[in-house]
Amino acid sequence: MRVKTLTLAAVLSLPLPALAQIDPAALRDAALKDEIAWDITEGLTTEIGPRLAGTEAEARARAWSVKKLAALGFSNVRNEPFRMKTWVRGEETLEVLAPFPQPLRLTALGNSGATPATGLRGEIVYFKDIAALHAAPDGSLRGKIAFVSHDMTRTQDGSQYGAFGAVRRSGPAVAARKGAAAILIRSVGTDYHRNPHAGGTGFPEGVTPIPAAALSIPDAEQLQRILKRGQPVSVKLTLTPRQVGMTESGNIIAEVPGSDPAAGLVVVACHLDSWDLGTGAFDDGAGCGIVTAAAKRIMDAGKPRRTIRILWAGAEEVGVFGGKAYFEAHKGEKHALAAESDFGADRIWRVDFKLPESARAVGDRVAAVLSPLGISRGRDPASGGADVAALVASGVAGIDLQQDGSRYFDLHHTPDDTLDKIDPSQLRQNVAAWTAMLAVVANAPEEIGATQ
Amino acid sequence: MRVKTLTLAAVLSLPLPALAQIDPAALRDAALKDEIAWDITEGLTTEIGPRLAGTEAEARARAWSVKKLAALGFSNVRNEPFRMKTWVRGEETLEVLAPFPQPLRLTALGNSGATPATGLRGEIVYFKDIAALHAAPDGSLRGKIAFVSHDMTRTQDGSQYGAFGAVRRSGPAVAARKGAAAILIRSVGTDYHRNPHAGGTGFPEGVTPIPAAALSIPDAEQLQRILKRGQPVSVKLTLTPRQVGMTESGNIIAEVPGSDPAAGLVVVACHLDSWDLGTGAFDDGAGCGIVTAAAKRIMDAGKPRRTIRILWAGAEEVGVFGGKAYFEAHKGEKHALAAESDFGADRIWRVDFKLPESARAVGDRVAAVLSPLGISRGRDPASGGADVAALVASGVAGIDLQQDGSRYFDLHHTPDDTLDKIDPSQLRQNVAAWTAMLAVVANAPEEIGATQ
Repeated sequence: MRVKTLTLAAVLSLPLPALAQIDPAALRDAALKDEIAWDITEGLTTEIGPRLAGTEAEARARAWSVKKLAALGFSNVRNEPFRMKTWVRGEETLEVLAPFPQPLRLTALGNSGATPATGLRGEIVYFKDIAALHAAPDGSLRGKIAFVSHDMTRTQDGSQYGAFGAVRRSGPAVAARKGAAAILIRSVGTDYHRNPHAGGTGFPEGVTPIPAAALSIPDAEQLQRILKRGQPVSVKLTLTPRQVGMTESGNIIAEVPGSDPAAGLVVVACHLDSWDLGTGAFDDGAGCGIVTAAAKRIMDAGKPRRTIRILWAGAEEVGVFGGKAYFEAHKGEKHALAAESDFGADRIWRVDFKLPESARAVGDRVAAVLSPLGISRGRDPASGGADVAALVASGVAGIDLQQDGSRYFDLHHTPDDTLDKIDPSQLRQNVAAWTAMLAVVANAPEEIGATQ
Repeated sequence: MRVKTLTLAAVLSLPLPALAQIDPAALRDAALKDEIAWDITEGLTTEIGPRLAGTEAEARARAWSVKKLAALGFSNVRNEPFRMKTWVRGEETLEVLAPFPQPLRLTALGNSGATPATGLRGEIVYFKDIAALHAAPDGSLRGKIAFVSHDMTRTQDGSQYGAFGAVRRSGPAVAARKGAAAILIRSVGTDYHRNPHAGGTGFPEGVTPIPAAALSIPDAEQLQRILKRGQPVSVKLTLTPRQVGMTESGNIIAEVPGSDPAAGLVVVACHLDSWDLGTGAFDDGAGCGIVTAAAKRIMDAGKPRRTIRILWAGAEEVGVFGGKAYFEAHKGEKHALAAESDFGADRIWRVDFKLPESARAVGDRVAAVLSPLGISRGRDPASGGADVAALVASGVAGIDLQQDGSRYFDLHHTPDDTLDKIDPSQLRQNVAAWTAMLAVVANAPEEIGATQ
């Protein structure tokens, strides 16, 4: 990657004698040779692997993380435990019984109910999308197995996950209300591999959870072809996940102490937990690697003005329990800015801001120092990422370094989310962008106050 | 795809008044709009799906095939049954116990022995390739689990499968002889998905089969990273496949009767069985679609000189039992030429010949009519494909229409071998090439005698 070097003078329009030793552009360029983010991602995915929230594997990941962050030289490294309701996967199989007997591949959605251990037999009722499911009369699915598709396509900003992801988030509750015995969905993804996409769903109070699972996309299309023959399609579904009650999770925190506590904290976040099918490299081991590598580079360059707090949140995938626990525990502290990396490890192409008017120049300097990395300014307000969204919504400034999501939903929540999917050169571009952003924000002489 | 039209006069250098109605170039070009090959591939993979040799699913596939071939208008459609030793998959899991507990994904190799139902615990001994395994002293693996890697890379002609496939074909027997309790191999493939590659292995008389399985490539690399930490790595392997004894398989045969029985048969083959993990679209549903579509196009153009016999062989994957049964049953008949499509459905780029000197002009005409499809003449002698290899080795002429294998070993024997992997436009190019080849060969006025 070729990066044009900007001089400090070009980047900073303000005279800043006290911080003259911090050159965001130089730190940015040095970070293009980063090895720290890879080391963290490789270590976590290899030595822990899958780490479902609330399980013993996530606990091992927390112990690993505390050790790693301390070894990297951060201060105040700690685990902040919290309790959560934990769900674990069981057996999961689907057999078409008629008219064309064959197995199909699927995976239970988080919070799915269970079938009997001997399986549940039923006839498939097809819905082309969640709107069609909503339109089905109440009670019309009594004893049936709903199969709901969708039309999500690949986009660079990943924005279709919002709209098309509804089939997973709310489809099961809708089907349950209409009397369905179970629901199958087309995986919320964009790949053609036999690896279904896991992900959480939920059932409101008063709605009894039904078995809910995602077919891989090739399997969903196979089932559609079978249905297209026009004969009734009966299947046997076996899903034996279970709720294991309240267990412990926790947030891992580490800090780079700043020289000016009154200037507020800069929180950089990722999440430590992963879905259980892959090793959580793209989602979100790399995110932890990126934000931590950037924070270490700032630490090694000299004490910043603002304290940088690294948050490796627990239990994001299953309900943002870590992000909520952090907000409850720390909302009383002064936060200057919050940002999170949780969208893979492909290159950052856009930066969005939510800054108070008084810090407009900070945003301009960040945008300028990111530009040589091929990053342009977006027009959306930053929202902060799941684990810091509550902070940003409460008025803390935010910056979103938007990653290229073109292949994110090929891997998201699948067994294929493994280390080999990380492109080291794109990972380094991420570290360079985060390092440059932190160099500007953590040292900005301006007040970065509330956005509202 | 743009195809230059050759006139009949340009293609045929011989004056052939009796066959003037057959224009290979026109048939070739018409075949670029073929729907038959897709229809067969879609039907077989959807209505049958996986069809492991010797099982009830393969029997259903035979019944489907007889019905389909009769409906297409072929003559003498029949099942020629044979008996075979059948192996079926059971449970298959691998857990790393120490130092980094986590599950890895694998699949048993055909003819693998079984572990106890409660699993087999052992320490991993790593070999970088099969040569290193061969070099291990006898008895040195007593009670250990061998893990053998290899360095296969992607090639257009797929030729590395020969050399690097040895790890699967003979690795298990070598490890068994050295006392190993089990063997794991890196999948013989070129993709990075969590879908291990199945495939057959074998144990010679006197060597007791040991449990033998292939890790997906991401899992094999994960295990290598774990081993690289330098600590002993212990695992629990559970594989419960079993030999079910002798069962029935069969070859499906259909014919386009020719006008000159003395001119010999032209056999076009594929195999009907598939590995059990995918639906056998690339391997080899598409092959059956291609050769059958071409034969039907010749049939519909008017009675050819030579009878075209379509062979959908049973039980290829597990030991070419169908090909051997065909050879034993039919070697006494006069075969003019044999060819098989069994390397996916991507475009044909090369044609290889094994023809007697007397039929040299036939080869020249085939090469000329294929050239506008982007197919050039290779220098290797044709070998015929697994199910007709015995015929070709015995002196029957052969033509190999070589498909682009660049992505073949991404899909080969994996769950990912499903219909969505077939590119309809490349499939049609295959049909066009086979149609043109058959138009020339089935109608050639020359004698096509033995090659030896």
